[in-house]
Amino acid sequence: MSHIDLISRLSQPSDRKAVLFVLDGVGDLRTENQPQTALEAARLPNFDELARRSALGRIVPVAQGVTPGSGPGHLALFGYDPTQPEADIGRGVLEALGLDLDVRPGDLAIRGNFATADSAGLLTDRRAGRIPTSECRRLCRQLQPALADFADLEVVIEPGEEHRFVLILRGSGLSPQVADTDPQKTGVPPLVPEALSPAAETTARLLGEVIDRIEVEIAGEPAANRVLLRGVSLLPDLPPFGELYHLRPGAFAGYPLYRGVASACGMEVVPCGKSVEETLGTVEEHWDRFDFFFVHIKQTDKAGEDGDLDAKVEVLERVDAELPRLLELGPAALAVTGDHSTPAPMAAHSWHPVPLLIHSEFCFVDETTEFTETAATRGHLGTFRSIDLIGMLLANAGRLAKFGA
Amino acid sequence: MSHIDLISRLSQPSDRKAVLFVLDGVGDLRTENQPQTALEAARLPNFDELARRSALGRIVPVAQGVTPGSGPGHLALFGYDPTQPEADIGRGVLEALGLDLDVRPGDLAIRGNFATADSAGLLTDRRAGRIPTSECRRLCRQLQPALADFADLEVVIEPGEEHRFVLILRGSGLSPQVADTDPQKTGVPPLVPEALSPAAETTARLLGEVIDRIEVEIAGEPAANRVLLRGVSLLPDLPPFGELYHLRPGAFAGYPLYRGVASACGMEVVPCGKSVEETLGTVEEHWDRFDFFFVHIKQTDKAGEDGDLDAKVEVLERVDAELPRLLELGPAALAVTGDHSTPAPMAAHSWHPVPLLIHSEFCFVDETTEFTETAATRGHLGTFRSIDLIGMLLANAGRLAKFGA
Repeated sequence: MSHIDLISRLSQPSDRKAVLFVLDGVGDLRTENQPQTALEAARLPNFDELARRSALGRIVPVAQGVTPGSGPGHLALFGYDPTQPEADIGRGVLEALGLDLDVRPGDLAIRGNFATADSAGLLTDRRAGRIPTSECRRLCRQLQPALADFADLEVVIEPGEEHRFVLILRGSGLSPQVADTDPQKTGVPPLVPEALSPAAETTARLLGEVIDRIEVEIAGEPAANRVLLRGVSLLPDLPPFGELYHLRPGAFAGYPLYRGVASACGMEVVPCGKSVEETLGTVEEHWDRFDFFFVHIKQTDKAGEDGDLDAKVEVLERVDAELPRLLELGPAALAVTGDHSTPAPMAAHSWHPVPLLIHSEFCFVDETTEFTETAATRGHLGTFRSIDLIGMLLANAGRLAKFGA
Repeated sequence: MSHIDLISRLSQPSDRKAVLFVLDGVGDLRTENQPQTALEAARLPNFDELARRSALGRIVPVAQGVTPGSGPGHLALFGYDPTQPEADIGRGVLEALGLDLDVRPGDLAIRGNFATADSAGLLTDRRAGRIPTSECRRLCRQLQPALADFADLEVVIEPGEEHRFVLILRGSGLSPQVADTDPQKTGVPPLVPEALSPAAETTARLLGEVIDRIEVEIAGEPAANRVLLRGVSLLPDLPPFGELYHLRPGAFAGYPLYRGVASACGMEVVPCGKSVEETLGTVEEHWDRFDFFFVHIKQTDKAGEDGDLDAKVEVLERVDAELPRLLELGPAALAVTGDHSTPAPMAAHSWHPVPLLIHSEFCFVDETTEFTETAATRGHLGTFRSIDLIGMLLANAGRLAKFGA
């Protein structure tokens, strides 16, 4: 029996609430130049106090040595094996779900950039000078009617931030096996959509027609006179989270990609602001509606990606200040962890195990007195795979039955 | 996706060098009679200094409680699952590769001993009184012409050390399913080659003819008048290490078996002396030619097998004295570990986890200050399977791409 099948089979309906509080990229490094991690450098009195009453440990996102992207990192936290083909969520789908677009089975979702080409048709800027979001909205509004009258094909174009947009293609027999048209450099024309398998030839041709119609319409724009498409993808075929574990899951995330992953897993995504305060405020408002809460804080990862230890410390201190609000809601079990580490010295995601704190009535109060990488290495929970976390959290919430008699 | 497929898929070409420094059998035990392990008893100032800048952990060679032979122990270090049938390297092949013999797909490789029988044909010494290596060479030179005129079968006999030799049989349809002819005791005649499956009957008969020809030729020898054959085997069918991980691997090992394993994995085996000093000197000479270095020190294992703690301590201190040479080469990542433990109190390989040290720019400088079993138990790397080490080492060398978006 696969791990997810085992945990699913043992999961029971209950009104005992579980919270998965994800501090994206929270894990950090000690190096010769950075002798303290962000968690060590931050003053976190509320986490210290919680650690004294909790169990610590660490999780390995995908496998030892493997650095996960955000999609695989979160799927693993939700108990899905991210290395299985059915868990491969394309960037187009992630982006579309994150914008709260209606993506149905069989729809193609595609990420787009507006770009700039010169009079010879050669790209001069792959991001169209990062046009303002308002410009992007205007362009998409203008383009939608021009994309309305395909035979047997419904096309939706939806603005994202700055130069980004999403295309949804709805029709029958569409294939995601189409290569990106972004050549990843300037001085060359955009690529023509290329079928990566014979079954995708019709889709590639249709995409070419869509691009032609768009580029006719925007030919006179000063900056945004071309489009580049990437991440052509279908919805993944994942069993819905709520059905798997017999619970009502709500996702609270301020950023599109994380809302996208949660939605692809069948969670209800609750609209919510980007700040720590707004996110927790939204959780408070909806506390009665769910019994599983995926609460996502992006800013820890952003600071790590920027290589900015001070900013990461500051975000952690802000989270610490808000932590009592979450505790006061009285979840039966709370897990605090990350989807991966984003060490400031690397300014990137990394493979390092991620610290984990679990608090519940029966979590085992271990000897750790702070929430840091080193304390987590010594904690009672030990080090295990991220996909094992969901079972551990549901067990702590009293939602898993005994296995066997 | 299997672990090796995952790591292979993420591996990228790079000029960043990784070193796998194997102190064979390095792990040791504390018992009531031996209160300190070899690593604890040794004075290792260079390892102490390196440990302060590194991450420690432990690896489990095959599975909890399983004592590995040298073949499986090394295959696991290289990322191959040693419990898979395709990773089963026969002793004959190991010995042949270690002697730098040309073993091709379909060839049978077989280990042989010269032995002594009395006038009744009963074995009196299974090792022919450990005849000198020069005697063994003379006998093989004498035997080669007598083995030259088989129809459809090419036979090569090659001397090893003392009473040992290797046979290579080249022909079509040869099967490794033939039992050893060594009865493992004296006072009985050698066994007749026995087919272990119907498909091996022709091979068993051919081997019987080879033995007959040899024994006719050496019948008048005072000691070496019989041969015993073991480990009839084909080359394993392993994907080449360099292709798997997109690197140029060089193997630096002074002893045949380890050269054999490395060669079976497709590494280039660099001729090198047996001492620690010679081995590291050869690494220095060839530093520019490779980007992965498997460096093998045998003497730790030998001292362990001899139950000689003092000798093991002395070898470790010799390795410690030479360690700076390896560090001065400036590898992007260095792993120091063993293929298994060989505790002096057991005078044998064992199942105990093996201490591991990883040094790289982003290894995570943990709180360990010495390279010992106990420090390794507390280190940041935690305890994981040996087959996960290669991914961890390549990640530390900056040679693995991110998994997923």
